Amino acid sequence: MDKTALSRRSLMAGSATVAGMLALPQAGAAAPAQTKKAPLMIEDQGSFAVGGTVIRAEGALDKYAQEPAGQTLHGDHAYIFYQTPVDAKPLPLVFWHGIGQFSKTWETTPDGREGFQNIFLRRKHSVYLIDQPRRGRAGRTTAASPISTTPDDQRWFNVFRVGIWPDYNPGVQFSRDPEALNQYFRQMLPSTGPFDLAITADAIVALFDKMGPAVLVTHSHSGGMGWRTAMYNEKVRGIVSFEPGSNFPFPEGEVPPPVASSSGPVEAMAVPLDRFTQLTRIPILIVYGDFIPAAPDPNPGADGWRARLEMARKWRDAVNSRGGDVTVVHLPEIGIRGNTHFPFSDLNNVEIADVMSEFLKRKALG
Amino acid sequence: MDKTALSRRSLMAGSATVAGMLALPQAGAAAPAQTKKAPLMIEDQGSFAVGGTVIRAEGALDKYAQEPAGQTLHGDHAYIFYQTPVDAKPLPLVFWHGIGQFSKTWETTPDGREGFQNIFLRRKHSVYLIDQPRRGRAGRTTAASPISTTPDDQRWFNVFRVGIWPDYNPGVQFSRDPEALNQYFRQMLPSTGPFDLAITADAIVALFDKMGPAVLVTHSHSGGMGWRTAMYNEKVRGIVSFEPGSNFPFPEGEVPPPVASSSGPVEAMAVPLDRFTQLTRIPILIVYGDFIPAAPDPNPGADGWRARLEMARKWRDAVNSRGGDVTVVHLPEIGIRGNTHFPFSDLNNVEIADVMSEFLKRKALG
Repeated sequence: MDKTALSRRSLMAGSATVAGMLALPQAGAAAPAQTKKAPLMIEDQGSFAVGGTVIRAEGALDKYAQEPAGQTLHGDHAYIFYQTPVDAKPLPLVFWHGIGQFSKTWETTPDGREGFQNIFLRRKHSVYLIDQPRRGRAGRTTAASPISTTPDDQRWFNVFRVGIWPDYNPGVQFSRDPEALNQYFRQMLPSTGPFDLAITADAIVALFDKMGPAVLVTHSHSGGMGWRTAMYNEKVRGIVSFEPGSNFPFPEGEVPPPVASSSGPVEAMAVPLDRFTQLTRIPILIVYGDFIPAAPDPNPGADGWRARLEMARKWRDAVNSRGGDVTVVHLPEIGIRGNTHFPFSDLNNVEIADVMSEFLKRKALG
Repeated sequence: MDKTALSRRSLMAGSATVAGMLALPQAGAAAPAQTKKAPLMIEDQGSFAVGGTVIRAEGALDKYAQEPAGQTLHGDHAYIFYQTPVDAKPLPLVFWHGIGQFSKTWETTPDGREGFQNIFLRRKHSVYLIDQPRRGRAGRTTAASPISTTPDDQRWFNVFRVGIWPDYNPGVQFSRDPEALNQYFRQMLPSTGPFDLAITADAIVALFDKMGPAVLVTHSHSGGMGWRTAMYNEKVRGIVSFEPGSNFPFPEGEVPPPVASSSGPVEAMAVPLDRFTQLTRIPILIVYGDFIPAAPDPNPGADGWRARLEMARKWRDAVNSRGGDVTVVHLPEIGIRGNTHFPFSDLNNVEIADVMSEFLKRKALG
């Protein structure tokens, strides 16, 4: 049992309080998923690019700009779609997808239910959905990557812990409707350019400069970029990170050794102490789902998560030992079972939203 | 003067009627852009993939799906984000972007005002925003293209008729705020795979099968794909096409010769007569903006549009000669001046929306 994990009782008690706070009849966490919901009251919605760079081709522009010489290309920005509900809470939620994914992560679930975008709009949070630089709607890039067409659906099915193809994990919170799997596979996206931690995080640092204080919600690969964003922008007032897997930052000289797994080692990274201490000033909730083995396992799809969870706990201890406020919740330990790598879109995602809402309320973040 | 063009008087009279029909106080077409607007009442919103193909790597899957053998890749679908307002009109509007663009085309304008997404939601239309196969959020592809990083911002500035870089066209309906130009350049996107007219249109044919009858709104490159969609799916009940530029279909044996321009020839394409006649069953409005030369011009950015407008008029005559209902509106001829290749996001986009609303009302489409 994770020594700092919340008990299910405390979470559920908080959740009931949160539910009581919700003014809208449709927002009840216990309501069946298919109940007709009340309309969303949207005060404002829109989209914009933020951050990024500009490159310029050498030479002089010809009269009608037919040749590249002298022309510019604007790229490496993030793309944001935002919605603000009527009577929004003060702190927006900024949702950042994981590897091979995009803003869809937070939208309609693979089986057609509401995702965190709608769920948290109903709970009166403004929502900002990111496509990170070089992905999806932010695909305009100053450096190109080849687009892979190598089939890999079944590998992701395994790595995302839906099961071991073609078998579903027992009790997994994922629809058996073939169309749900079709939608799930189609929410993958290639990157248009190489991954660069600084370029990617810098665009989100710029987003927080533009929008002001907010809570960052990360998933998997964006976990590490989220830590970096908070190290570089104090407007990040809290973080909820679902299954972070890479780029855990430790103070120089205090970096733990890699954690071995059958999917390869999980390595931490070194950052200057003054950057690291920025992470001790905000509440951080880290959430992992089910089907993570307790001991080394030959299935790399699952075993990688054992190593990442272990590294997350080392990181929690490092931040908390310097006065931080990091909580790691391994959902099965508080009695919530069957979750994949995507708890926020799993069949029990309203229950997962309750866990998040309870944290936000307890930390005065929403 | 285009012989079938509407007069400004008839359009504006219709527009006044449309404005009178709008129940919401915020929807007044004449309201200043920066007036505080009433909330959007959204009955439902969400996203999904539609259409597409599946490829499979030869060979047998290994135990944990580590190698490509036996794995699938789901690609070539379109991605749709939809919103349905409370008390929606019967026919949704399906918005399809142009070349190098994505759904952003219809969202917040480069200078931060509301685009057609919000404007038509306020007018009680359901809106469906497309990212076409191999673009943006639909970037998962079964065939790859190299991602270009060749600077070309200034070429698009010219081709989209904002001006001749660095000069703005006189009276152009485009903000002089440098940030507007920054946003404009950042709404370009590379394709992740080669363009294929059938693959791209097939996904939208599948969309209409899924959603039922609706009106298709196309822009530029999607114009030609829109004609094809309507030839293959009778659920397309009307089309509004902004500045279509390619793939005008004529009956076999009746294809006109290419129209020469300083940007190259504009060619028509041949289709079977029975497909062509599908286009005679629905009302079609085609809209072109300003700064299109009346005679051949050495600036290819502008001259290409002279040739495309000429081809559009030939096409209108071909469809109407077989009983169709195509109207070509060249905006300056009805007194609306200064529009670029993006009338729906230009500074006068509410006036352009009025032109579209008047057409929809007159044809019983909305």
